[in-house]
Amino acid sequence: MVHNKDCISKDYSNIKDIYRPSHADFTYDKKYGFRDYRGGGRASARESVARVCAGAVAKKILEELGVNVLAYTASVGKIKLRTIDLSYIDKNPLKMPCKETSKEAMVFLDNLIKEGDSIGGTAYCEISGLKSGIGEPVFEKLDAMLSKAIMSINATKGVSFGLGFLASEQKGSQYNDIFYSENNNVYKKTNNSGGILGGISDGSKITINIAFKPTPSISIPQDTINSNLENTTIKIKGRHDPFIVPRAIPIIESMVAITILDYILINMTKKIDCVKYAYENF
Amino acid sequence: MVHNKDCISKDYSNIKDIYRPSHADFTYDKKYGFRDYRGGGRASARESVARVCAGAVAKKILEELGVNVLAYTASVGKIKLRTIDLSYIDKNPLKMPCKETSKEAMVFLDNLIKEGDSIGGTAYCEISGLKSGIGEPVFEKLDAMLSKAIMSINATKGVSFGLGFLASEQKGSQYNDIFYSENNNVYKKTNNSGGILGGISDGSKITINIAFKPTPSISIPQDTINSNLENTTIKIKGRHDPFIVPRAIPIIESMVAITILDYILINMTKKIDCVKYAYENF
Amino acid sequence: MVHNKDCISKDYSNIKDIYRPSHADFTYDKKYGFRDYRGGGRASARESVARVCAGAVAKKILEELGVNVLAYTASVGKIKLRTIDLSYIDKNPLKMPCKETSKEAMVFLDNLIKEGDSIGGTAYCEISGLKSGIGEPVFEKLDAMLSKAIMSINATKGVSFGLGFLASEQKGSQYNDIFYSENNNVYKKTNNSGGILGGISDGSKITINIAFKPTPSISIPQDTINSNLENTTIKIKGRHDPFIVPRAIPIIESMVAITILDYILINMTKKIDCVKYAYENF
Amino acid sequence: MVHNKDCISKDYSNIKDIYRPSHADFTYDKKYGFRDYRGGGRASARESVARVCAGAVAKKILEELGVNVLAYTASVGKIKLRTIDLSYIDKNPLKMPCKETSKEAMVFLDNLIKEGDSIGGTAYCEISGLKSGIGEPVFEKLDAMLSKAIMSINATKGVSFGLGFLASEQKGSQYNDIFYSENNNVYKKTNNSGGILGGISDGSKITINIAFKPTPSISIPQDTINSNLENTTIKIKGRHDPFIVPRAIPIIESMVAITILDYILINMTKKIDCVKYAYENF
Repeated sequence: MVHNKDCISKDYSNIKDIYRPSHADFTYDKKYGFRDYRGGGRASARESVARVCAGAVAKKILEELGVNVLAYTASVGKIKLRTIDLSYIDKNPLKMPCKETSKEAMVFLDNLIKEGDSIGGTAYCEISGLKSGIGEPVFEKLDAMLSKAIMSINATKGVSFGLGFLASEQKGSQYNDIFYSENNNVYKKTNNSGGILGGISDGSKITINIAFKPTPSISIPQDTINSNLENTTIKIKGRHDPFIVPRAIPIIESMVAITILDYILINMTKKIDCVKYAYENF
Repeated sequence: MVHNKDCISKDYSNIKDIYRPSHADFTYDKKYGFRDYRGGGRASARESVARVCAGAVAKKILEELGVNVLAYTASVGKIKLRTIDLSYIDKNPLKMPCKETSKEAMVFLDNLIKEGDSIGGTAYCEISGLKSGIGEPVFEKLDAMLSKAIMSINATKGVSFGLGFLASEQKGSQYNDIFYSENNNVYKKTNNSGGILGGISDGSKITINIAFKPTPSISIPQDTINSNLENTTIKIKGRHDPFIVPRAIPIIESMVAITILDYILINMTKKIDCVKYAYENF
Repeated sequence: MVHNKDCISKDYSNIKDIYRPSHADFTYDKKYGFRDYRGGGRASARESVARVCAGAVAKKILEELGVNVLAYTASVGKIKLRTIDLSYIDKNPLKMPCKETSKEAMVFLDNLIKEGDSIGGTAYCEISGLKSGIGEPVFEKLDAMLSKAIMSINATKGVSFGLGFLASEQKGSQYNDIFYSENNNVYKKTNNSGGILGGISDGSKITINIAFKPTPSISIPQDTINSNLENTTIKIKGRHDPFIVPRAIPIIESMVAITILDYILINMTKKIDCVKYAYENF
Repeated sequence: MVHNKDCISKDYSNIKDIYRPSHADFTYDKKYGFRDYRGGGRASARESVARVCAGAVAKKILEELGVNVLAYTASVGKIKLRTIDLSYIDKNPLKMPCKETSKEAMVFLDNLIKEGDSIGGTAYCEISGLKSGIGEPVFEKLDAMLSKAIMSINATKGVSFGLGFLASEQKGSQYNDIFYSENNNVYKKTNNSGGILGGISDGSKITINIAFKPTPSISIPQDTINSNLENTTIKIKGRHDPFIVPRAIPIIESMVAITILDYILINMTKKIDCVKYAYENF
């Protein structure tokens, strides 16, 4: 049981009958016939505490297996990372691996708070130490399941692997990761595919980029409707983060760790000799 | 049973022991201890015929329910759509909704074939006519399941909803979709969120963008390794498409239609009166 | 596509608004607000054709792997098998492996038809040739998944493994299957557990017993209610089998074959070296 | 986190290399290449603590919805319940709802302990207050999912609904549950089907019987093999229950409560108007 010790009881009654733009208020009401206006119910990121509890256990087991999952904030609006210093991630509230970019972003966010506005951003996640052969074919591909796990996190709007959407602009001769061997070990000259081929891990780092929309709750007045479908205006008060990504970092790591560990457990098992049947019998 | 009538038997023996770069050859071999070098086995897009069969049935049922799923090619490398003319999609082999862009892309692809190279691209998919309230909370969000379904398609490297990664650069005041009502109907001034809020459909169009990597099989010679982990070179012959996206269009529509219909079937059911319990008892 | 060539169009209008006792009419109506009175809709055993199609493919693959799934009718009401002659199963419409019992049961069923009544029965299913190590721990135990698969077949009311409910009356000293070895092979003196220990196959035959209720549709008049909740009487006409088990035999074999093959496919995969971690690290 | 405060460290080394008859030792070793001989690892009933934690929460929510799940011990070997006094369940260590039978069984078990033997038994579980309409058609029938949930509990060997295997001996005219109405409420004269029709709850009590094998660990010496496949003898020491069913009662209630609540949550949702489409369009 996790007690919510940072809960400030306040009056939500001003949004009781009003749908916040780009919030789940409207869709929950349409689906269930009611919504819990006092914080968002199951649409609240508070449910992520269970994910992080399970993820903490999964990460500990993965560590024993030599697998490490690491996520950080990669951009705040249009401010993107200039350098990578992983040791800095836990030294700044934005969870960015770059002192300079983090400071710039903090100034930007301070101004944003004064405006009563919010901003989107991206997170990056990498899985290192995972051997090749993890993932199941056809519908349960490793990237398919990671995408589901990540896109079930609040405020995500996109997920991609390796070069992601940039891959769509490249030629095969440019994008293909060239294999080579040294001392009987396999390496790739690049990792544009982000460590997954055919839905199965290839032994290199798995690299993931995730897009987050701006926090929908802003204090700038917005036009909207109420539950009687009348046009009205809303001004959202409260302690809303102008930038949600740092809060999502442990959730990303947790969902990724749980997913990877599930696949590993399935594979910690009897190996049926498929070579024999595949070639001899079919 | 679907007979493969377009199968040309040829000699695959030159790639029998060589791993094609960015192909599933290597990972299948690492996972299963063998691979079907004669076409790719379960990593081959041939398995998608079953998806399209099921998708055809799902699309017919969805039509009766007023739901329509439509996908098309949105870009070929850096060549992006300039205008949208849906009637043109089935009139060109690239499945692009724009005569002008399609022609430009055809010229580009002709040159690419001469070079022996390939190119990535993006697809766009929209679901129209879906009422609000479809999707399940927490782990089975509508966008999470659509992401899994789409990312299980061969060669996909990214998926996004609405503005997608562009959302990460916007402010809340800019991104939020403003609700308004007219004659007791709810509308949104924009659809930046792509029709899903809190994992549940909001009644507007669901819009999805999907990134595809370039076809890995190119005839330009590439360095690689063989199954003895010796460095070697490969030159892939055969009828390989330089551009895979048009082939993926019906698969995207199918996976999306199957996913949406599953959610609708779950919701064609008894409605437990949750309002009473939510407010009175808890 | 499977055409229903044995469909006799008849007037179902007399049962349109009446709930047949012990049929799914009532529950479908309560759940969905309507029911397809013209044959039962998704509650009809006609949906099992898809199961048998998939099962036929699964059985062919299992054969190649040396695994065989066999089911037969084990009892008709209180008439139970006296001897077992597997070669007789396909020689009688009741799918019983015993000429004598089958003949006795046929006489019993002829009289039952004249009475307009029906009878319950049991089926037996065995899986032979399956090596030990198949099944996943905790929630996905082999017997748990087989139970789900079998209990999803129409008219089933119970499923058991090995001695089943008789095991509940035995002492450990009587029930336990004693291991012994000969020439480095492992054998068990008995197979009371039905080939599954801890949710994992032990290499001996998996044996399953399944209870079926009597066909609910009988032509003897029965009291019931209509959809206006008025008390009334129903007399069901039509070609209803007085005994459903022989029809279920191929469905049982199919569901079991699909389930077993799924587990085998999951195990045709990389084997992570769990010994090392289990002993050294934890 | 639940601390195991009743753990007595003892020397398991005598069974380290020996397979206990009818235990998961052998199958875990065959599947994973090792087993945790110090208590059974994931095959130990200790994992059920997580089930009971989740079940406790599920039962609390179900209570608010008016649904009650109750299980008790129904037989100890051949000693079966004579009367039912639910108030007695928590007053005896055997969890039997009958003082007389419980006392008789206690005497029987005392003798069994002296013999170093164990005994099987059955449990009964009923779900009351569940409205009709819960359960999903075809593969996810309510009885199919309950069977899976229950058969995933250690030592279960069979599960049945309503009359269960007795249904297989009855005629339709005898078995069918007759509907009748009084004051616009629907009732059934009997509940032979155990509250589920077509995989969907019918509004009456759901009744389940479950068979448990005798505890495999007995102190009577048994022949068996060791991991070198040599024939040997084992004499199992330790605090092993001669009768496992009372320990399983809260696990049964938990698995049933979790399963039922899952179905209810799925149904607490938008109801698509399927009547319109079913009749008008198809």
